[in-house]
Amino acid sequence: MSSDTDITTDEQRAREQLVRLSERFYDQFAGGDVPSMEIPTRSKSNIVFDEDAGVWVLGDRHSTRSANSVGGAKKLLKSIYAVEFLANQLDEDRSSTLRELYYLSESWDNEYAQFNDQDESNQLIEDLEVVSGVTREDFHMRPEESGATLMGPLELREQTRRGDRVIHCQEDVGEGGYQIPNNPDTIDFLDHDADFILCVETGGMRDRLVENGFDTDYNTIVVHLKGQPARATRRITKRLHDELDLPVVVFTDGDPWSYRIYGSVAYGSIKSAHLSEYLATPAAKFVGIRPQDIREYDLPSDPLSDSDVNALESELEDPRFKSDFWTEQIELQLDIGKKSEQQALASRGLDFVTDEYLPTRLSEMGVI
Amino acid sequence: MSSDTDITTDEQRAREQLVRLSERFYDQFAGGDVPSMEIPTRSKSNIVFDEDAGVWVLGDRHSTRSANSVGGAKKLLKSIYAVEFLANQLDEDRSSTLRELYYLSESWDNEYAQFNDQDESNQLIEDLEVVSGVTREDFHMRPEESGATLMGPLELREQTRRGDRVIHCQEDVGEGGYQIPNNPDTIDFLDHDADFILCVETGGMRDRLVENGFDTDYNTIVVHLKGQPARATRRITKRLHDELDLPVVVFTDGDPWSYRIYGSVAYGSIKSAHLSEYLATPAAKFVGIRPQDIREYDLPSDPLSDSDVNALESELEDPRFKSDFWTEQIELQLDIGKKSEQQALASRGLDFVTDEYLPTRLSEMGVI
Repeated sequence: MSSDTDITTDEQRAREQLVRLSERFYDQFAGGDVPSMEIPTRSKSNIVFDEDAGVWVLGDRHSTRSANSVGGAKKLLKSIYAVEFLANQLDEDRSSTLRELYYLSESWDNEYAQFNDQDESNQLIEDLEVVSGVTREDFHMRPEESGATLMGPLELREQTRRGDRVIHCQEDVGEGGYQIPNNPDTIDFLDHDADFILCVETGGMRDRLVENGFDTDYNTIVVHLKGQPARATRRITKRLHDELDLPVVVFTDGDPWSYRIYGSVAYGSIKSAHLSEYLATPAAKFVGIRPQDIREYDLPSDPLSDSDVNALESELEDPRFKSDFWTEQIELQLDIGKKSEQQALASRGLDFVTDEYLPTRLSEMGVI
Repeated sequence: MSSDTDITTDEQRAREQLVRLSERFYDQFAGGDVPSMEIPTRSKSNIVFDEDAGVWVLGDRHSTRSANSVGGAKKLLKSIYAVEFLANQLDEDRSSTLRELYYLSESWDNEYAQFNDQDESNQLIEDLEVVSGVTREDFHMRPEESGATLMGPLELREQTRRGDRVIHCQEDVGEGGYQIPNNPDTIDFLDHDADFILCVETGGMRDRLVENGFDTDYNTIVVHLKGQPARATRRITKRLHDELDLPVVVFTDGDPWSYRIYGSVAYGSIKSAHLSEYLATPAAKFVGIRPQDIREYDLPSDPLSDSDVNALESELEDPRFKSDFWTEQIELQLDIGKKSEQQALASRGLDFVTDEYLPTRLSEMGVI
């Protein structure tokens, strides 16, 4: 997976990888072999920690998809039709959504190549990503929604279908900020005056930080995660970190589901373990809300539900959360039995988060 | 509810209305009366069609909230604390989210004035809107998320805390478009080259229209509704219609829940009937997906679920859907028992929607 931003090269490489897949089938046919495809297994038991990259990646286990059964043959047929569609899409410099691909298959001439449901077509695109080593974005497959925004002292150039746009993410945007495009690899970072990146879970808190001028006062690029972050949001965060050499900190609610949001920024998910090097920012640090904050600041809280407790217990077992910090915090949370939202900081006034909480935490963490 | 965009005037008026509320309590106390507040009833039985405005508004029924019971007295106490908070917020030119208000109440010195849950504080803000005739936006209360975007031949000026921003919604934005701010009354429309407004339910379809250049080919302002539209999205749609004198058409999935999305753009909702004149665009027309389209274009579809059928039957009874068009379409849908998504048009190719479906429908409707 390339992290450069030369779009044409990425597209050419994507197309070549796809065509190579088809050629392999062709060679197998020509050699009198039953066509087959090796696919790395995408399950919890097949993710391993890559010490060098600091991320969880797919292990060595593979399964073979072969045309020696009717089911296997149909799957390979669908793969070939999908590859043809994607190669044409890249030729024509078009793009499409995962859902459009599913519906489009209804127009394919071979009924057996049509998808039964969207899970099947989504799965196939993931298979093609894993097998080809090319990301969905480079196939020009868009998600249904991206939607996250960015605000901060950063000037960028986005290549759009209508020409290049140079945008300063404070001076050229409204209060809503800069809308991250579906494929952030169309962006070049031109100039910046930022000291760090702050990823924020909720819209309410993002708006609070922007209203209070935190991005200008602390030279911060505020990235709105909008709950579980879209791939585009994780990708641009990683690129900001890698290319501008800026620390990344993540600010979420204080509950087990939000720790997973941090985890998906920092370590990637099992579902996208084949993309960890493209999407994950292992150096990202967690600001809060920590269970410790709930206690120290006596924040308004809700009791943990049964599913919260289960999620926390499962995080205690999760290799990605096996650090002293997380063990201590999660055990504390199970002990106090409480969770708090980031906006609960408002119980100490609307400026508490920007005047006291974040400056204190960020300086403890050595970020400011 | 004012529809002009002079922010300072709106803020001053909001503050005056709030102070007037408190003065009324003061006068009641001074006159030896038990303080009370008249609140219009917000229920299905108390909405009536305003023939002049073409929208559903609250009827004449009122209830009285009086301090003659402990519960009533506590509610009035909370109102007074909230009014004080809002008046200060306006003085300081600050803003806050509904959730922040709920948490903030924990810092109030009178324990009885603190909210028990966020439903209670949300409800109170709605009460204050109804009673004062001022919108939440003019109190500077933000929603948790706004999130929708706009793309099209429109130049606007947004007043932000960092100064004015002049933005052309095609030339100065990336592929993601212009992010609509939480309070679109901070916007002045400067110039445009648009023939109509197209409101689109899903992100996938919004991206398709933008990729295919529909906004440039047909001089269209594409507004992404993002499912059930936020108030900011409905407000800017109404202002685009009223101030630029442009037709508004709504393009959604073909199912009962999407017809309600159209309904909320065109007629407003029961919950926000007190805001219909501020948010609703009664002249908005529905493009599709119509049940008739599902049949005529033989679109990929799913069978109606029981809850779909119930929702359609309830729409047949809904005064807002009592037109020949809707009666015919809903009865047809119950008859064929199918629903289709807007992206199902991709089964006829990625360009079908922009080359054929929309041009045909819009010309039938007299929009182009």
